[in-house]
Amino acid sequence: MTINEESLELHEQWNGKITTESVCKVSSRKDLSLAYTPGVAEPCKVIAKDPEAAYKYTIKSNTVAVVSDGSAVLGLGNIGAKAAMPVMEGKAVLFKTFGGVNAFPICLDTQDTEEIIKTVVNIAPAFGGINLEDISAPRCFEIEARLKELLDIPVFHDDQHGTAIVVLAGIINGLRITKKKKEDCKVVINGAGSAGIAITKLLITYGFKNVTMCDINGIIGPDSKDLNWMQQSMLEVTNPDKKTGTLADALVGSDIFVGVSAPNIVTPEMVKTMNSDSIIFAMANPVPEIMPDVAKAAGARIVGTGRSDFPNQVNNVIAFPGIFKGALQGRAAQITEEMKLAAANAIAYLVPDEKLNEEFILPEAFDPVVAETVSKAIIDNIPEDGKNIK
Amino acid sequence: MTINEESLELHEQWNGKITTESVCKVSSRKDLSLAYTPGVAEPCKVIAKDPEAAYKYTIKSNTVAVVSDGSAVLGLGNIGAKAAMPVMEGKAVLFKTFGGVNAFPICLDTQDTEEIIKTVVNIAPAFGGINLEDISAPRCFEIEARLKELLDIPVFHDDQHGTAIVVLAGIINGLRITKKKKEDCKVVINGAGSAGIAITKLLITYGFKNVTMCDINGIIGPDSKDLNWMQQSMLEVTNPDKKTGTLADALVGSDIFVGVSAPNIVTPEMVKTMNSDSIIFAMANPVPEIMPDVAKAAGARIVGTGRSDFPNQVNNVIAFPGIFKGALQGRAAQITEEMKLAAANAIAYLVPDEKLNEEFILPEAFDPVVAETVSKAIIDNIPEDGKNIK
Repeated sequence: MTINEESLELHEQWNGKITTESVCKVSSRKDLSLAYTPGVAEPCKVIAKDPEAAYKYTIKSNTVAVVSDGSAVLGLGNIGAKAAMPVMEGKAVLFKTFGGVNAFPICLDTQDTEEIIKTVVNIAPAFGGINLEDISAPRCFEIEARLKELLDIPVFHDDQHGTAIVVLAGIINGLRITKKKKEDCKVVINGAGSAGIAITKLLITYGFKNVTMCDINGIIGPDSKDLNWMQQSMLEVTNPDKKTGTLADALVGSDIFVGVSAPNIVTPEMVKTMNSDSIIFAMANPVPEIMPDVAKAAGARIVGTGRSDFPNQVNNVIAFPGIFKGALQGRAAQITEEMKLAAANAIAYLVPDEKLNEEFILPEAFDPVVAETVSKAIIDNIPEDGKNIK
Repeated sequence: MTINEESLELHEQWNGKITTESVCKVSSRKDLSLAYTPGVAEPCKVIAKDPEAAYKYTIKSNTVAVVSDGSAVLGLGNIGAKAAMPVMEGKAVLFKTFGGVNAFPICLDTQDTEEIIKTVVNIAPAFGGINLEDISAPRCFEIEARLKELLDIPVFHDDQHGTAIVVLAGIINGLRITKKKKEDCKVVINGAGSAGIAITKLLITYGFKNVTMCDINGIIGPDSKDLNWMQQSMLEVTNPDKKTGTLADALVGSDIFVGVSAPNIVTPEMVKTMNSDSIIFAMANPVPEIMPDVAKAAGARIVGTGRSDFPNQVNNVIAFPGIFKGALQGRAAQITEEMKLAAANAIAYLVPDEKLNEEFILPEAFDPVVAETVSKAIIDNIPEDGKNIK
């Protein structure tokens, strides 16, 4: 049986991958009067006077909404809300399993930006955080930005920032191995969707000075056509050499390649034109931009992919459970750039010098210390004025 | 310690009365590839082709949204979304404990009818049913009616229909005891909000011919002022004798009184003017319209209240868990009038002749056979064309 067949069979058995469970037992009239009427009126009254108390008496303290409109699900594209459910339930499973955070899938039967924003604002009272998922670019940028303005709970588009944090962690460790300095590295990002843009932004925030983005039409520069507003705005901070041409042209003399694009588009010849000790993250799934053995044979020193059957898997599950765990515990109003950098650093340094090598640059997702460490890094880096405690 | 103090302390310990739990364990890369990527793509693809399959592969099969805008919470009034959370979490606890149905609180940060409708429609894909709760009248009527039109899953305003079903069950058993016929009984309902109107409607559907509603201004009739559109529409089916006057006037010569109104507004003198073998449901909480011992001393034969410390507690928990359990299992697209009547009958006849007496007209909420029996009655009464199976 293939993984796909086995997965389908299991999904039928599971018939929903999460349940809601009661924290309190209700087996007598007394129990009922405490968990429900008339006793429940008491916490209601306290919260009515002081909305802050919702964190003390309700699930808001430790519950995240996993919100999607089903417009960009996995590699499947715009499959809609109902079909996105298995992914969002899976995400909820990972939140609980790895972060101890309760999570509920909210799959939206609308793809209208304004309606999505309104809907999420309307349902926010029950939640301590909003994890956006699989919403297509460039709508995802506006939806996230607007929700961050409107809500006082953390809003985090995992396809963007979760990916960017784990990629940065891998690159930090790539630099530890290759002894290169971020200021001296030329980076090429291929793919200008939500992940590609978020990775580019975070690398620049981290201190990379020379990052060039490419898309299906080649290098993104002032002459590129059909850029969306977000891609347009990236021109100000990317491609400082004003390069033009193809992805192959971009890669000449570069140190780091990050692909969030399409299978088999990087050739051994292209890798050969990169600087020595090159680092390659080929994250197209399931078939990467270049297979790890091929990239290595062509001279790459470190190769990561999105796949679990190769070394150095770039897997968001290393990041998001700990990020929300920490943001909720620390009552962060937002997840700031500093917090993202702190998370990436924490993930990177979970791999100690003695274990760090070309085949082991990222910690194992299943190690419970990962979410705990990320969570602490997040808590320690919440700015004093960045908490939603009134 | 009072119930209120104890409840507050427990709510702090619980810190949220429900959790989300994973059905599948994820402790290896293989597990991850089955519950999440890449395996999860398979059920997604199947649902994308056939949305019906959501019931096979996702939580939709057994999950209800408990939706409130916090506008009419318990006896506390318009306390808003956050303050309503403890009640909605409590409701979710009862759904799971008594019906085995997963339930999640959706407390809405809007009280605009149109926005509520849109929001609920938008989040519906994850849910197999919508339980509306504590939404003020007359907005609750429009919200429920519109959602029933827009969605193909059951929408049920429990404050209306749950209450009405349990009251009807109690009245059915009152008639079993008093040997009166529904066609001959005069019924007075005091309170013309969501519960009062729903009770009136269901009693008329059941076959009562003479039902008169009262509100704070007395008998509701053609000359009543300031009626909302729903109260206005009730004039067509109520008060056949065209009575006018006060609640006291309405009660003269009546057989059944149902109060969903205010404390201590029914006097012994008023009960004395009712017909013999009168039945009284005094459900104002925590202080009923008339205390049971007072009503009995004045001649009432059967008295029910909303309180757990008196006999014959009218408690919605007897109804809603089994109603949704059955509606979900039977794939009901709506909960029809016939299904409500069937539920009321099933609840009534859970009390066998040999146990039925003036102090025992409703089954015990904690008896697991209750939800099971209600659920079966619901399933058996879903009309053939009333299922949401395409």
